[in-house]
Parts: sequence; structure tokens; C-alpha cells
Amino acid sequence: MDKNEFHVAIIGGGLVGALNAVYFASRGWRVTVYEMREDIRTTKIAGGRSINLALSVRGISALETAGVGRGLLDTLIPMKGRMLHLGKTGRLTSQNYGYFGEAINSVDRKLVNQHLLSMAEKNLKVTLKFQQEILSIDYDKKILSFKQADGKIVKAAADLIVGADGAFSRVRRELMRVTRMNFSQNYIEHAYVELSMPSSASGEYVMDPNHLHIWPRQSFMMIALPNIDKSFTVTVFMPWANFDAIKTEANLLEFFETYFADAIPLIGKELLVKDFFKNPKGSLMSIKCKPYHYKSSCVIIGDAAHAMVPFYGQGMNCGFEDCLVLDEILTKHIGARGSVETMRPSAEKLALALEEYSATRNPDAEAICDLAMDNYIEMRSSVTKLGYKVKKSIEGFMHRLLPKTVIPLYTMVSFSRIPYSKALTISKSRTILYDRIGKVFGYGVTFAGLVVGGVVWIKYGGGLKRIHGFFMR
Amino acid sequence: MDKNEFHVAIIGGGLVGALNAVYFASRGWRVTVYEMREDIRTTKIAGGRSINLALSVRGISALETAGVGRGLLDTLIPMKGRMLHLGKTGRLTSQNYGYFGEAINSVDRKLVNQHLLSMAEKNLKVTLKFQQEILSIDYDKKILSFKQADGKIVKAAADLIVGADGAFSRVRRELMRVTRMNFSQNYIEHAYVELSMPSSASGEYVMDPNHLHIWPRQSFMMIALPNIDKSFTVTVFMPWANFDAIKTEANLLEFFETYFADAIPLIGKELLVKDFFKNPKGSLMSIKCKPYHYKSSCVIIGDAAHAMVPFYGQGMNCGFEDCLVLDEILTKHIGARGSVETMRPSAEKLALALEEYSATRNPDAEAICDLAMDNYIEMRSSVTKLGYKVKKSIEGFMHRLLPKTVIPLYTMVSFSRIPYSKALTISKSRTILYDRIGKVFGYGVTFAGLVVGGVVWIKYGGGLKRIHGFFMR
Repeated sequence: MDKNEFHVAIIGGGLVGALNAVYFASRGWRVTVYEMREDIRTTKIAGGRSINLALSVRGISALETAGVGRGLLDTLIPMKGRMLHLGKTGRLTSQNYGYFGEAINSVDRKLVNQHLLSMAEKNLKVTLKFQQEILSIDYDKKILSFKQADGKIVKAAADLIVGADGAFSRVRRELMRVTRMNFSQNYIEHAYVELSMPSSASGEYVMDPNHLHIWPRQSFMMIALPNIDKSFTVTVFMPWANFDAIKTEANLLEFFETYFADAIPLIGKELLVKDFFKNPKGSLMSIKCKPYHYKSSCVIIGDAAHAMVPFYGQGMNCGFEDCLVLDEILTKHIGARGSVETMRPSAEKLALALEEYSATRNPDAEAICDLAMDNYIEMRSSVTKLGYKVKKSIEGFMHRLLPKTVIPLYTMVSFSRIPYSKALTISKSRTILYDRIGKVFGYGVTFAGLVVGGVVWIKYGGGLKRIHGFFMR
Repeated sequence: MDKNEFHVAIIGGGLVGALNAVYFASRGWRVTVYEMREDIRTTKIAGGRSINLALSVRGISALETAGVGRGLLDTLIPMKGRMLHLGKTGRLTSQNYGYFGEAINSVDRKLVNQHLLSMAEKNLKVTLKFQQEILSIDYDKKILSFKQADGKIVKAAADLIVGADGAFSRVRRELMRVTRMNFSQNYIEHAYVELSMPSSASGEYVMDPNHLHIWPRQSFMMIALPNIDKSFTVTVFMPWANFDAIKTEANLLEFFETYFADAIPLIGKELLVKDFFKNPKGSLMSIKCKPYHYKSSCVIIGDAAHAMVPFYGQGMNCGFEDCLVLDEILTKHIGARGSVETMRPSAEKLALALEEYSATRNPDAEAICDLAMDNYIEMRSSVTKLGYKVKKSIEGFMHRLLPKTVIPLYTMVSFSRIPYSKALTISKSRTILYDRIGKVFGYGVTFAGLVVGGVVWIKYGGGLKRIHGFFMR
């Protein structure tokens, strides 16, 4: 270990660990990434399953600031709204996510991970080590011990240890020994299974690729996201009890006939049965903890700090934004990337930076964990309710009138970098705003005005562009 | 291992583990208690510190039902109320806990533990093993592995594994690998240190022994509980920051002169300084989790399932009541203690019993965790406020009028076996009750009536016995 260099050990070479390696190397720091699994760029994932994620503004900002957007952002498939498959026939209804054409973007998890590892490795300051299982960490001496693929135990030293090792983080577990960490993990009663929906015989998408497809069935749901190979990845979310009740091929087909009939020909019966029974059923949990750091020795980011249920599509985005926020705070305390002073930060300043990161990032991470939990009900049930549609219309109507004053919650979360906690607070106080308007104009008049505005907007859909143009330009 | 016997491994020979061994042995089960430390009956605790606890109705019920009260209940020192030490001079004010002379009881932790271990060992079905550190558990094969004092790793088998191994339970940690356990741990920003207040030169108590003494100082507090050797154990609770600020003897004495002046001569300057700096500062945390069991293999009880802050004096009582509740549920599903059918329970029935225990005990344990957290503010601050005293008076007044209808929260928690969660719900709905009365009699009249009743009661203190007699008999 070169004493003149500042050494960082990043535990975990997944999405967030790899991106953070890029950020840290650009400070002139020597970065070693220790990943437990094999190199995802050279191994085949069993069955070639592709898990897709929705990349939105926070994630894109973090990638672009790190200068690693190119080559990745071209592979995105924009999804401008939800496509609801309603009733037995699967009648289609589109609900836009944004009010000015904004979209979230379907992207392949493996592809993003491979890209980021390669981008990290391009930097001579970065070394990637695979099949390194972290065993223990001495945070005061800053010594780590790993078990290698050959079973050999090796030790390593670092000036700073970054835990990007996911929801079951061992770095966090070790951190709990030296800090008074508040911690919670909560499983929901629902689980998921992934299925594939192949491209058509002619190699085309079998559904509109520019939507996130949802089959909302109140107490459970199915969704589908497009892949670049023209297939879709389908995920069924429902209570464990429902999974337990589907024991035979006949059970499964009856269940699909009843709830997702239109999807059967698109997936194909044979593949449906094979995938459903073969693929693992995953549990869903939320993890919160605090603090995220220990002195100047350690910080945890991504799922290691805040695992969330997948229903707001923000897990990856939040993890990427962690890297960006940490970078911004480091810049404030120890100088900008590329500057001379940042290359060997003092322990005092680094500790201050990590403390600020812990204190400011925690409420944001906890807010998105809560929002993600709430959004499951929205996706599987609320989207089909009239009350929801009216509320959305009112919000959309006001957003178009006052685009910087009234911003819908979904827009704040997915299409802005407004801190998650602020988005949550604003959304909660929205009812207060309505209340204030009500007090001035009278509740009846205000409500009627908003409803009429909303209904007009629902009714004349496309016509609104004109109204929008009229008001906005 | 005798195949004809039902074997239980209890991990942890503390208060709750030892009591549970008595309960289980009386079902005709073969019980082995594995304790990590040495035998508390033969080792000297460093410095001879005595930690005291407050035993109340739930704990006493559990001891008596197990038939282990005798020899222990004689050593109790009843504390019928709080003795507040107010202002710089330590002006004394007594506040009774009960309204009919009920008391909580100061008892020595070590003494209780020693007594319960000896009672357990009297039963030939119980084996106590010390210096056995649990390493891992295979819950499906029901195999445990331990590290002994000589460093040797040994394995053991059991039909049922009971985790009574405290807040940092390894049984719980292992349980998290096989169940989807919801879990939270929360540290509060306050810490504690214990001091001793010796008996007088003539060997007498230096303060009234039949009170729990409190020096409430709003943001922090000191308390003292009597010991049978005529000394008191004193505990200072305050934020970590306050501990950090007391660096020198002069700092400490100035702090005590300002806030606890009347205690200085009672403790003695020299001992105060010695204890304060020598004794460890302890952190305070709350742990909740769910479920408490796994199939018919494992159940966790006591602090392993629900660690709480000490401010309601219910940690031990709740743990003891766990044993009693578990016993009641086992009786329901697999027969009474002493019956033939309980000796070799079927896995199915046992699993049902553990599932019911988990489901019913969890809300009660979480309720007392929450109540304990809230009670810190009551002890250190509310007790000095007029509003609190008026509220208490009203509640006490109504309790005396309608002793089975309006029961104060403290009475429900400490002097009854009303489930904790029910006590919490009733206490919350009390305001609703007042509201209903208000609707009938008019709020003004009801409030005035209650206040006058309360004030009369405060004012004429002792005179109330007459009123009580008048109304009650």
C-alpha cells in the first residue's frame, strides 16, 4: 500500500459500488472494489434471466455527473406512462407519468452493471477483485479480512471503507458493533416471481414498449417492462398465501385465466408454466438504519443503507444519487474532484463530511423507503379508482397551470432531484394548500372549480395541449 | 439423548431463562440451560455492584404460578410511590403509585437470578451448563453448536430451542436466517451510570426506603432504589453529550452541586467521584421483532424478543410474564403441566402453540416497549408539572369512584395482568371516555366537577381515605 496515496476499499461491485468507484477514483484516490461473486461481465447468469429496472432523473444525473452516461443511455427504453390492463379482457388504458412528456426508462440490470464495472476499470486508479467474501472489519485499525475463492483468508488495509454490499450488508453488520445504530427491517406479506414474455415470431414487441404495463388486481398485481431484445420481463406480485395456493399447472392456468387472461397468449402457456414453477419466489423488504458512517473510516451506500420495496422504481436511482450526494458533500468539505487538496483528505474533514452525509441523506432515504411502500397500493389498486383519477386530474391541471408551484409527487420523485424528504413533506402539505385556497375562495367553489378543471382535462385529453399552450407560452 | 423424553435447550440462564426452565421441567420435559457466563452463584461480580429491579404484579404472578416465590418474595422492599427531590434543596414530595396502597418492589438482580437457578436445579429434569457460548443453530435438524470454556466446540440436539439470551440474542440472529423476521433496534440519545449510596454510620437507610427516589431535572434525571443491605443504588440518566462534558472531578462536583446537591452528603464526595468515573456508561435501547418462533423448533422470550428502556420497570416483569403466557398457551394446546399428554407433544400442536404465542405476545411486548419509552419523559419532567398532577388527580379520583371502570395506566401496567396492548389502548381511549361524559353532562360541568374533585383530593390528601371509605364500603 503506497503511503502517499489515499486508499479506499469498496465492498460490493454491484450497481452502486461500481459507480462510486468511478466517483472516488476521479478524486485521485486509489480504489479497490471487492466483489463477492464472479465477474458479471464474464459469467453467464443461470437461464439468462434479465431483470429490468427503471432509470429516471436522479440516476441519470448521477451517471452523467460521473461522465459514464455514454454507451448506456442509448440502450434505454423510455416508458412515458402506465398501461393498465383492466378487467377480464385486459382492456387497455394509458396513464401518463409526466405532464410534459417525461418518461422513466427501462434498462437491463446486468448491462448497467457490466458497463459501470468497465468504466471503473478504465481508470488506472481502480482495481476490481472478484470472489472476495468480506469476513470482518476492524474499523479503528482499518483492516479488512476476506475469504477468497480458494478458501484462503487474506487481509487488506484501507483509509476509507465503503459498504455497497446490498440489503444483507456485512459492512453494516460490522458497523453495528462499533456504532449505536438504529436499524429496522420489515418484510411485507407479498412476494414476487419473474416470468418472460418473448418477442413475436417476427421479432417484434407483443405490447407497446413505451409503457410500463400493469395488471392491477386490488390485492395483487402483475407488471411488465420492455427489454432491448424486444421481449418483456413480467413480474407477479402477490401474498405468499396466493403463491402457496398455486400448486399445479391447472391451478396456475385457472389463476391466469381469471386475472391475467390477455397475458397468456403473449407469454405462451408452456413458458408460463415453466417460469412460474422454476423461477425463485422472492421476498420483499424494507431496511432503514442510522447512522451511515463511522468516524472517517466507513460509510455505507445503496441498499446496504436503505433497501426498499421496488414499487416506486427508485432503488437504483436512490443508490446512484447516494454517490452523487456523497460527492457533492465531499467537494464541500475536502475540495472538488481533480483538485490537489482532495487527494489526501485529513481525517477530521473526512469525518465531518461523512457525518454530514449520514445526517442529510438518512431522512431522504427513509422518505423514499416509505413512499415505495405506499406506492404498492397505488399501483395495484388506486390507479383503477375514480377518486384517484379525479385527484390526479386536479393535480395535473394545477401542475400545468403552475408548473413550478404545484408539482405532483410522482414528478418530484421521478423527474426532479428535489430531496425525497422534501417531496414527501410537500405532498403531505398539499392538502393544507388546498385547505388554504378553500378558506379564501370557499371550499365548495374551490372543489367545484378543481373538479371541473380535472374533468375537462380527462374528457378532452389531447385538447389540453392547446390549453397548455395557451396558458404556458 | 433419551428418545423417550422431550428435550429442550434453553439458551441463556439469566432471569427469564432460569424461570422458564422451571416451567418447562414441570411439564416433564428434559431441560438443559446453556449459559455463556460463569455460574452467578459462585462468581463474584466485579466491585460487588448491585443492580436493582422493580418487581410488580406480572412478575410476582409468574413466580408464584411456577411455585418459586418462597424465599424470594421475603427479600422485597416495597416502594409505594415516588419520592421527588425538587429544586436545589431537594425538597421532598411523595406521589403514590397506587390508589389502594399497591407498591412495586425493589429487588436485587443477582439474588433473583441465583434463587431461580437454584430452584431450577432442584428439579432433576434440569441440567445447568455454564460457559457455553452458542455459535450456530440448525433449526431444521435441531442441532446447536457451542464453544466451551476450554475452546472446544461441542454439538447438542434438542426438540425445542428457547432463546432467552438477552437483547443481543444469538438465537434471534440465527432465527433471522430462517424466518422473514421484522426487526428494529433503536438507541435513545441518553445513557446511564450507576452509583452507590451507602447506609449510614449506624447502618440505617439514609433516605425513606419505601419510595423510589427521583430527582427529575426535565432533560435528565437521577433515581435511587433501596437494597436489603440498607444502601441505595443510584442511577443517573442523561444525554451522552452531558456525560462527555463532565471530564474532571471539579466538573462532576459542580454538576452535582447544581442539580443533585442533597444527594452529595448522602453518597459522599469520594465515592461519588470514584463510582462516576470508574463505572461503565451504559447505552439504552429498544428492540422489537416478529415472529418470536420458527415452526415447532424455536421460540424467543424476554429481552431476546423485546428489549426495552428501563423507565417503566417492566423489563423483568414482562420477561417473567412471557414464561407464564407461554405456559398458559402450551396448556391450551398440549395439555396442563403434570398431565401425561404434555410430556411428548406432537410437532403440529407445538407449532400451533408457538404460533399463537408469537401472534398474541408480540403486540403486548411492543406496547410495553412504547410505554417504557414514553415514561422517561414522565419520570424526568411531567411529574413536576401542574397539568400532570391535575390529570393524575382526576384519574385517581375517578378510579376511587369507579375502581373497576376507570383504572389509571400505571395501575393497569404495574398492578394488574391486563394485557399491555389493552392497557395502552384503554389509556388512549380514556380521552374518548371523558369526551363521551362531556357530551352528556356538558364539557364545562364535567371538567369543573373533575377538577374540583381532583383539587379536593390533592388538598386534603389523607382526608381522602374517609371519602374513599364513604364511597367504597
